[in-house]
Amino acid sequence: MTDTVAAKPASLIGQRIAKMDAPEKASGRTRYIHDISLPGQLHAAILRAGRVHARIVRIDVSRARALPGVHAVITAADVPGQRPIGVAKDHLPLKRDRVRSVRDEVAAVAAETEAIAQQALALIEVEYEDLPVLADAEAALDPGAPLVHPPVEGAPAGAPTGIAGRADNIAMRFDYTHGDVAQGEAESDVVVEDSFSLHYVTHCCMGVSGVIAEFDARANLLLYSNTQVPFLHKREFAEILGMDPGRIRIIQPPIGGGFGSKLDIYPFEVICVFLARATGRPVKLVYSREEEFIASPTRQPVRLTLRSGCTRDGRLTFRQVHTLHDNGAYTSWGATTPFVMMQTFSSLYRVPHCDYHTVAVYTNNPYAGSFRGYGNLQATFAVEAHMDRMAQAIGMDPLEFRRRNAQVAGEVSGQGMVFRSCGFQECLDTAAGRSDFQRKHREYAAQRDAGGPVKRGVGMASMLHVGGGAKIYPSDGCGTILKLDDFGHVTLMTGASEIGQGSETVLAQLVCEELGLPISAVTVVNNDTDITPWDVGVHASRTTFIAGNSALGAARKAKAKILAGAAARFECQADDLDLTGGRIVRKATGQTLSDLPRFLRSLHFSDRAELVMTSFYYEPPSVHQDKEFKGDVSAAYAWGTQVVEVEVDTDTGNVRLLKVTAAHDVGRVLNRLGIEGQVEGGIVMGQGYALTENLIVDEGKIRNPNYRDYKLVTAPEIPEMDIAFIESMDGEGPKGAKGVGEAPAICMAAAIAAAIENATGVRITSLPFTPERVYRALHGALPPTPPAPRVPA
Amino acid sequence: MTDTVAAKPASLIGQRIAKMDAPEKASGRTRYIHDISLPGQLHAAILRAGRVHARIVRIDVSRARALPGVHAVITAADVPGQRPIGVAKDHLPLKRDRVRSVRDEVAAVAAETEAIAQQALALIEVEYEDLPVLADAEAALDPGAPLVHPPVEGAPAGAPTGIAGRADNIAMRFDYTHGDVAQGEAESDVVVEDSFSLHYVTHCCMGVSGVIAEFDARANLLLYSNTQVPFLHKREFAEILGMDPGRIRIIQPPIGGGFGSKLDIYPFEVICVFLARATGRPVKLVYSREEEFIASPTRQPVRLTLRSGCTRDGRLTFRQVHTLHDNGAYTSWGATTPFVMMQTFSSLYRVPHCDYHTVAVYTNNPYAGSFRGYGNLQATFAVEAHMDRMAQAIGMDPLEFRRRNAQVAGEVSGQGMVFRSCGFQECLDTAAGRSDFQRKHREYAAQRDAGGPVKRGVGMASMLHVGGGAKIYPSDGCGTILKLDDFGHVTLMTGASEIGQGSETVLAQLVCEELGLPISAVTVVNNDTDITPWDVGVHASRTTFIAGNSALGAARKAKAKILAGAAARFECQADDLDLTGGRIVRKATGQTLSDLPRFLRSLHFSDRAELVMTSFYYEPPSVHQDKEFKGDVSAAYAWGTQVVEVEVDTDTGNVRLLKVTAAHDVGRVLNRLGIEGQVEGGIVMGQGYALTENLIVDEGKIRNPNYRDYKLVTAPEIPEMDIAFIESMDGEGPKGAKGVGEAPAICMAAAIAAAIENATGVRITSLPFTPERVYRALHGALPPTPPAPRVPA
Repeated sequence: MTDTVAAKPASLIGQRIAKMDAPEKASGRTRYIHDISLPGQLHAAILRAGRVHARIVRIDVSRARALPGVHAVITAADVPGQRPIGVAKDHLPLKRDRVRSVRDEVAAVAAETEAIAQQALALIEVEYEDLPVLADAEAALDPGAPLVHPPVEGAPAGAPTGIAGRADNIAMRFDYTHGDVAQGEAESDVVVEDSFSLHYVTHCCMGVSGVIAEFDARANLLLYSNTQVPFLHKREFAEILGMDPGRIRIIQPPIGGGFGSKLDIYPFEVICVFLARATGRPVKLVYSREEEFIASPTRQPVRLTLRSGCTRDGRLTFRQVHTLHDNGAYTSWGATTPFVMMQTFSSLYRVPHCDYHTVAVYTNNPYAGSFRGYGNLQATFAVEAHMDRMAQAIGMDPLEFRRRNAQVAGEVSGQGMVFRSCGFQECLDTAAGRSDFQRKHREYAAQRDAGGPVKRGVGMASMLHVGGGAKIYPSDGCGTILKLDDFGHVTLMTGASEIGQGSETVLAQLVCEELGLPISAVTVVNNDTDITPWDVGVHASRTTFIAGNSALGAARKAKAKILAGAAARFECQADDLDLTGGRIVRKATGQTLSDLPRFLRSLHFSDRAELVMTSFYYEPPSVHQDKEFKGDVSAAYAWGTQVVEVEVDTDTGNVRLLKVTAAHDVGRVLNRLGIEGQVEGGIVMGQGYALTENLIVDEGKIRNPNYRDYKLVTAPEIPEMDIAFIESMDGEGPKGAKGVGEAPAICMAAAIAAAIENATGVRITSLPFTPERVYRALHGALPPTPPAPRVPA
Repeated sequence: MTDTVAAKPASLIGQRIAKMDAPEKASGRTRYIHDISLPGQLHAAILRAGRVHARIVRIDVSRARALPGVHAVITAADVPGQRPIGVAKDHLPLKRDRVRSVRDEVAAVAAETEAIAQQALALIEVEYEDLPVLADAEAALDPGAPLVHPPVEGAPAGAPTGIAGRADNIAMRFDYTHGDVAQGEAESDVVVEDSFSLHYVTHCCMGVSGVIAEFDARANLLLYSNTQVPFLHKREFAEILGMDPGRIRIIQPPIGGGFGSKLDIYPFEVICVFLARATGRPVKLVYSREEEFIASPTRQPVRLTLRSGCTRDGRLTFRQVHTLHDNGAYTSWGATTPFVMMQTFSSLYRVPHCDYHTVAVYTNNPYAGSFRGYGNLQATFAVEAHMDRMAQAIGMDPLEFRRRNAQVAGEVSGQGMVFRSCGFQECLDTAAGRSDFQRKHREYAAQRDAGGPVKRGVGMASMLHVGGGAKIYPSDGCGTILKLDDFGHVTLMTGASEIGQGSETVLAQLVCEELGLPISAVTVVNNDTDITPWDVGVHASRTTFIAGNSALGAARKAKAKILAGAAARFECQADDLDLTGGRIVRKATGQTLSDLPRFLRSLHFSDRAELVMTSFYYEPPSVHQDKEFKGDVSAAYAWGTQVVEVEVDTDTGNVRLLKVTAAHDVGRVLNRLGIEGQVEGGIVMGQGYALTENLIVDEGKIRNPNYRDYKLVTAPEIPEMDIAFIESMDGEGPKGAKGVGEAPAICMAAAIAAAIENATGVRITSLPFTPERVYRALHGALPPTPPAPRVPA
């Protein structure tokens, strides 16, 4: 026991902390799934239809099977009990007698090398009979439209769509309402209506999709998978494979980016398991980049009509929305984006009356998955366009109009979301103030008709998103196991996966803050379902909030255990002690009683014989939505406002993004470096969505499956950014923090549209703002808004 | 809630349960360290002295360094801060200016392939100046003997031997006493004295030594190591490398056998880390079989003189022992075997008075490590020979003589060991009864001089060993973390390593018994120091006892948590409920209330939001020995008696082992199949020690470093076995069990010596009983006992 009084080290909260995996990644040493090579491992490849819609007449795999080095060639005929996968269970991994989209899986090979597998694919002969292609969502509603999943004769009653088929092309529909839109309209001084058309983009993760499947000698299944939801997948895979879920173990290698595309199970994963079962060997399947473009899910394309109203004094009165979604040939999470869009329609700003009607239809197009923001980019694009239009209609400054309708803490939205912490007003004021929005907005509008062809504009948009998880599954919780060794080194076993968002660093930070240790004292274990406790997965911007509270709970228990031991040893109250700087100190005086590692050894190597091991499960106090889709689905909500400044070349239609000023209500900044990275990345993703990215789907075929023709934003195009964080100190969030993972991508397209309008006077309601589209719009070759989608009664 | 009453499944305890790793091993799919290949991995090789004792005049590595594909060549000069390793810190990994044994490490290479590494070794030029060889333990005591670690001029005061050297060759010595041997001798009617000579054998693990060392980009060290003591090694490696132990992570691949050789740190491991540091790459070093023979530790050779006395009525009066140990050139665990030998000298049978004096000396021979039984084979060989000699001297049946001196439960030995559970008498009676020992012993002795050259004999020996751990380190405990998933699958994270002894199966079984689950419901995680809680390591037959109690503790907490939840749900008392057959049942009626997986989901996916995760640290109630080496060092003790029957061909000296009847007090049988395997394996190991195995060390050189010349027992020579388990139901043991890992190897040599004597009338006191030695002994060409070792005053 020493008497030293050392200076209390600064809190880790809010510091700029490098991501724990950064050194490995920056030095090229991270071992992705590509780098894993198991003894005896085979390589798989998938034969895809290439046809958009066709009947499979005949498949001959005999020549492929005869190729030396080939261990298995399988088609649907080799897997008689196949069960449909996906959100609506409408998707057989290996297609039986019909292909419905260009990426459809017809056969698969496992071979000694990738080259042999590809060679074998080329030896498979498939005879097709083409069927009429359904490539348009509205046409899918025609009574005489080709059916993508026609009813299957003799299918058992109650069989899933993938087996039974259906009599129309409707994949999903629902209606939402709060208040009385007719009343809202009656109270309106202004009513505006526009239609919007949102396009296909795709995730472009640097790490392509991949999986390794292996059965051990006891028939347990081990999957190395890039999934974002390992615990949900245990159950999903088990159902699909007819296995006990307890016998499936999922290990996640470091994931080369995940933005939602890794939330669903895809045919390639199940096929890989089939091949592992057929060969008795570990089988690895990794997409090529072209395959990643063709066969991984997109952001959900949507056409929507929005009617909005307000009073003369700038009070929103109602919103009425119809959306028509192109579901593609199968149903993945894209089909559920309306549930998130609904939150924006119903609750971004005070909306007293709201109706929302949505339909998703099957076509022969690619299908959409979840994607950062999850429908909210699309919804916000429309809602914020109307905020501007209405402000114009009543002659009000767009900031002022928004301020009058933006909620404050304590409000409950029409959909039942309870806004306990809320920094919306501060977001608006901060983004506007730091960007000098109001002055510029006035001046640029005034300069519109003067000067040369290059115009400047500023635009503003705001967003609302869940910030404390989203209670969609039976639990929205996360478990943590914490273990300290004899040297003060902490192992944090968390159910929450690291997919590049920096969660392991934030979780380590929260634990270290509690235990008074440096961040280097932690190993985070977060990639093995057999070791880590359950978590619902990485989605809904929930990890910092949910897993953070879980880690904090376990750390608090560990701290209590240590301080109880110390209180006994040093004959004082645990409450009088604290952990800081790797030491046990007296709170009142800062006097050091022991350094922590030494004390841990003395706890362990004494009559107490204690190891510090704790566990904690955190379940947020949110609730499931009721049957009317109402309820406080998240433990906290996040807001943000972004102001963008653009330069539009009216001669070429080229839009340059000059600057983004972003203000996000994040509850509290935990890792300043990490959160800045999240916001910067989101801004650039939103920029790409607005300006450059466009997955060209032409009669069901993808025309630009490569980085030459699919234009990602690259470094020189990244704008200046001014990022501000509004710290609303959420009462439930870990140290006050809320989720922000998806937020920064959400308003960019809306803000850019506004800025283009500010620069040119033209509001474009279709994405993306490619030079061609902007040029046509400026020169009258595009209608002001696309036609309203036809929606069935 | 159903009302089914299902039959209660049989207890798992005592069942024959296949080892969990058996399917993988039997199908050749287990991935040993050999099978691990990390991206960028280099291969290391070590240049060994080849000389027995020499000064290093010059090393030239320039040609080796120039070889393409070589990444690093290092000698002691490249690692200036080298710290000595080993039990006595007398061993520099890379030798500086002197080699002291033929296996000494002089230089090491890391290269792209093993072949290049070997090629590079051949290009290293070393000039030596030979020094006088010290190859005999007695000669090491001569005043003029060459010094193996001569004092180093200018070495700092207090520096370890490896740096400072010493003025004599004495590596270790101590003296033990209880009672008063003079008094014991005075009370004796018979006093016998003999000398014994025990030879070198080596472990012959099927998996040779190996390690992979890698620094990550944050300079944390990851070791893939076959160690048996990963948690102790974290600290050891840290001290050697000058690192924070918290930054060292040790992962154990499946280990190809471990019998104690993997308890110490060896130069190759440290050298591999040096190479990983020098190259910035993962570096792998795996021994060849010849290297394994030459450079891995042996069983400790010893020469000992035993004086024993008894009264005419068969009561032991005293034992006096001197042992002289050849420590070899460096000190590993072999030097500490006298501490275990002491337990047998002091406490195998009631010994009222005992003296024990022991010295270990440095020579230029190989050094010994720990090895299953840990000196007890050697001690028991001598003690049991005297039990027979004294019985003969007083004309008493050898069984009867032993029975009179064998302890019963409740006794405390002279060394302070408290025998709470004790089945010693039952072991004697059972082994003798089932083998018809007394009749055969009489008859074979009577037939000795009749018939042909092939004689039969039976011999008996017993042993005492720790059976409830051994409190040698600051803690003898083990930690467990348990986690149940939503499907009733259990992950058991235990500090205890599986090294082939079947511990993971026994631990899984104890957990499943408690939770009413089948053994297939468990994944055991036991090979990663970052994940599993602390355990002292696999030694001292402690795993079933210590880790078993730890696993049971965690399982009991899990059961309590589940039943508390169930009691709340089903509105009853937790005490009224039980877990069995994967169900929650009412104890009284057997009525099923829920199947367990469904109930776990309902706990998780409800307002309780509970995951079942528990942890437990078990520390046995044993104590450290005091300064006189006395104390109750283990929580339980194990006994065994083995009766062997042999056939001796007096014309050739060949001894055939026909049958072994073994009775072991194991407390309680947990896994009958596993424990039978342990006993069978131990018997064969003891058979090899007695009859065939002999590491020939000739002036410091090993003459038979291969399986052609080093004779392991092979399948056809394995005798018939009759194995009985005495279930003394230890009060502290898990479900009553005690340790038995080392026990079955311990008495074999002693029993075979007795059987040879029964067959031929000649007692041989040197091992092994090769045909040559037996022939010479039978024909008078060997002294009846070897000369007594000289022991310094």
